[in-house]
Amino acid sequence: MSLKLKIRGLSPAQAIVVFYLLAVTVSTILLSLPIARHPKAHWSFLDAIFVAASAVSVTGLSTVDISETFNTLGIFILMFVLQFGGIGIMTLGTFIWLILRKKIGLKERQLIMTDQNQTSLSGLVRLLREILSLILLIELAGAAILGLYFLKYYPTWEEALLHGLFASVSATTNAGFDITGSSLFMYKHDYFVQIINMLLLILGAIGFPVLIETKDYFFNRKKPKRNHFSLYTKLTTFTFFALIIIGTLGIIILEWDHFFKGKSWHESLFYALFQSVTTRNGGLATLDVNEFSRPTILLLCVLMFIGASPSSVGGGIRTTTFAINVLTLYHFSRGRKTIKVFRREVMEDDIIKSYVVSFTAFLICSFSVIIMSYTEKHQSILSIMFEVCSAFGTTGLSLGITPELSVVGKWIIIILMFIGRVGILSFLFMFGKEEAVKYRYPKERVIIG
Amino acid sequence: MSLKLKIRGLSPAQAIVVFYLLAVTVSTILLSLPIARHPKAHWSFLDAIFVAASAVSVTGLSTVDISETFNTLGIFILMFVLQFGGIGIMTLGTFIWLILRKKIGLKERQLIMTDQNQTSLSGLVRLLREILSLILLIELAGAAILGLYFLKYYPTWEEALLHGLFASVSATTNAGFDITGSSLFMYKHDYFVQIINMLLLILGAIGFPVLIETKDYFFNRKKPKRNHFSLYTKLTTFTFFALIIIGTLGIIILEWDHFFKGKSWHESLFYALFQSVTTRNGGLATLDVNEFSRPTILLLCVLMFIGASPSSVGGGIRTTTFAINVLTLYHFSRGRKTIKVFRREVMEDDIIKSYVVSFTAFLICSFSVIIMSYTEKHQSILSIMFEVCSAFGTTGLSLGITPELSVVGKWIIIILMFIGRVGILSFLFMFGKEEAVKYRYPKERVIIG
Ligand SMILES: [K+]
Ligand SMILES: [K+]
Repeated sequence: MSLKLKIRGLSPAQAIVVFYLLAVTVSTILLSLPIARHPKAHWSFLDAIFVAASAVSVTGLSTVDISETFNTLGIFILMFVLQFGGIGIMTLGTFIWLILRKKIGLKERQLIMTDQNQTSLSGLVRLLREILSLILLIELAGAAILGLYFLKYYPTWEEALLHGLFASVSATTNAGFDITGSSLFMYKHDYFVQIINMLLLILGAIGFPVLIETKDYFFNRKKPKRNHFSLYTKLTTFTFFALIIIGTLGIIILEWDHFFKGKSWHESLFYALFQSVTTRNGGLATLDVNEFSRPTILLLCVLMFIGASPSSVGGGIRTTTFAINVLTLYHFSRGRKTIKVFRREVMEDDIIKSYVVSFTAFLICSFSVIIMSYTEKHQSILSIMFEVCSAFGTTGLSLGITPELSVVGKWIIIILMFIGRVGILSFLFMFGKEEAVKYRYPKERVIIG
Repeated sequence: MSLKLKIRGLSPAQAIVVFYLLAVTVSTILLSLPIARHPKAHWSFLDAIFVAASAVSVTGLSTVDISETFNTLGIFILMFVLQFGGIGIMTLGTFIWLILRKKIGLKERQLIMTDQNQTSLSGLVRLLREILSLILLIELAGAAILGLYFLKYYPTWEEALLHGLFASVSATTNAGFDITGSSLFMYKHDYFVQIINMLLLILGAIGFPVLIETKDYFFNRKKPKRNHFSLYTKLTTFTFFALIIIGTLGIIILEWDHFFKGKSWHESLFYALFQSVTTRNGGLATLDVNEFSRPTILLLCVLMFIGASPSSVGGGIRTTTFAINVLTLYHFSRGRKTIKVFRREVMEDDIIKSYVVSFTAFLICSFSVIIMSYTEKHQSILSIMFEVCSAFGTTGLSLGITPELSVVGKWIIIILMFIGRVGILSFLFMFGKEEAVKYRYPKERVIIG
């Protein structure tokens, strides 16, 4: 009751932060239960917080080996946390309220709005119900297909289905956790498993509104087909797939004489394509990223930093942010004052917002790298940069330094995963509320760059 | 004549680029003259282009040892090129025109305006004359003081004066070249030489309009003293010195247990202060940067990337750009729509402009690091990042990899020095002219980060 009263005094962004922190706390306790772990597994309190933060933010970085640490109960708890974190604590919370037939007030609606970045309040409850059923449907389909197919790999039905279910949840929520002990390395020549995984990863990371609008387009006969898709959907979908193609081509070109030397064209293509898809948010892997050369690893850093669509299970600065940054740069350099795309003009507010997001993200990541270059004396700058981008993009790929991180390093990664998942905007608005303009000063030009 | 006609068809930004390229070409030829070099010195055509580009952009990076390559004539040619590059080709060109009593047309005025980033055309000719006489005055004073003082170090008057003159020109134009063979290492305990050098570096890098406004404030009795300084001057001066203090403190803290271990407080303070000042654009050094630890080197990368004031001899994204980025971030996170500073409001246009500059610079530098991590296989990522930031900030510090760069690496550094000196805005406007808005589309919000 007192908690509820307190929440009512918070801004939506602040309340989201509080809810996320609560989710991490509860997850830390759940994952620390002795009955969830193998008795001999090494496990500290900081490991518990790290894995909980990683699971709630669906990042997938881990200081311990999941399959060696957790028993079946622990794995189910982890799946539950991934589900909760992936679909969004707010979304699920609202859904529970819905089931309890509790009327959703404006305050609660605003909470969900900020979490899923929706700009309109109307139809929100319907939207949430649709998101949740859509995601569960995708996950169940994935679990069924993978579970049946995994009979090829695992001796018993139970094992095959457990692996199928975990793989499906981990892929759809873009969590990137694995219970195989080595991600998807064992399926590196199994293109069917890879295709299913890529589909699930993309469906989770492309953004819920895109899924809803696409579903409506095909199944809702009432709505007009013309101008059906929002600018957001067009922009994020285009950017999402453009970046997948750029990533794939970049990896193929940079690794042609290195990792792909002596490999067949379809092997190379699948390695590059899967890596490009997974780098944007998934975090699953069919290879050890250490096998790539330095330019490829730097390219992956950039892709992780950009991340997935807003209103998805993903992190990073988000595709729309990057797209508006690039569009503004392009139109500005051609001397244009307005940014036109897909027969719409981008709002000036959104331009400044998107640059503030990128600039803040850059500052936070640079600062983290500088501090970690001090605290992680034995790790290379490249490994540290990769770890930082992976945490901020909630990707979960690593050059293998996660278990060796210092205490300060682990806390930095925990905070970065949190910021990456909550999003820079919510993170920024944590510190203040919208202020009315009380007084004005004359405007004056300044010489720039 | 045909050249002149052609220039008239170019935008100011394009003409500036053409003039810079011409200056590099002429400098390449001058520095390649056999009579300017020691006969046995190693010298290739690419070295000539590299040193010419470095001198015109007053960066100071060099693929050869200056003192071992050039004779006294060569050193005077180099000083001439530094002077030409430092004060701005346009400025000097206009001054020559002035001397020849040629009337300056609007087109030529616009050229100078873009080069020195002046936002008003009025009083431009007077301004240029003032800038040039002020810089020459500063340089002569520096040369006299250092030349006399250097009698302590050099056996003959000629040598002392030559070293004094070159040191003064190199510091005032922030060129960072040296004819000692090891920058200012030999003066590492001579605080007098360091103070004079820091003063000259700051006077060159703080921005010409700041110097002019300050001079007017003290010596022009007609002008009112209230509201005398422009927002530009207040903002750039504050940021300039704030960054020097942050840099000094950062270096002291990060090196306390490392490079400064066992050193006295005044030794540590002068090492840190001089390094903080020189990193922003000067490029002179009292120590080998390799002796610093990784976090300090990364901090220096950030300081070089930010660079000096606009309308100065410096490069980088410039202080005002960074200041507006940070101010916008701060006010935006507090929910404010207007950016107020020093009792003025910043124009919305300038906000977008400053973010476009930072974003473009970040893209260009990241891209350069990725390519060079491929072409410079034997250099560490840290050395490459440092070299890239140094070139873009036209700083000229290096971890020592410049002479070992591959051909592609050298060209990337040449291009970065060029972009850094010309400035991102002129670089962007190279590709297009201002376009009128021909048609409009409806505006639509997008979900961001
Ligand atoms: K992930
Ligand atoms: K320099």
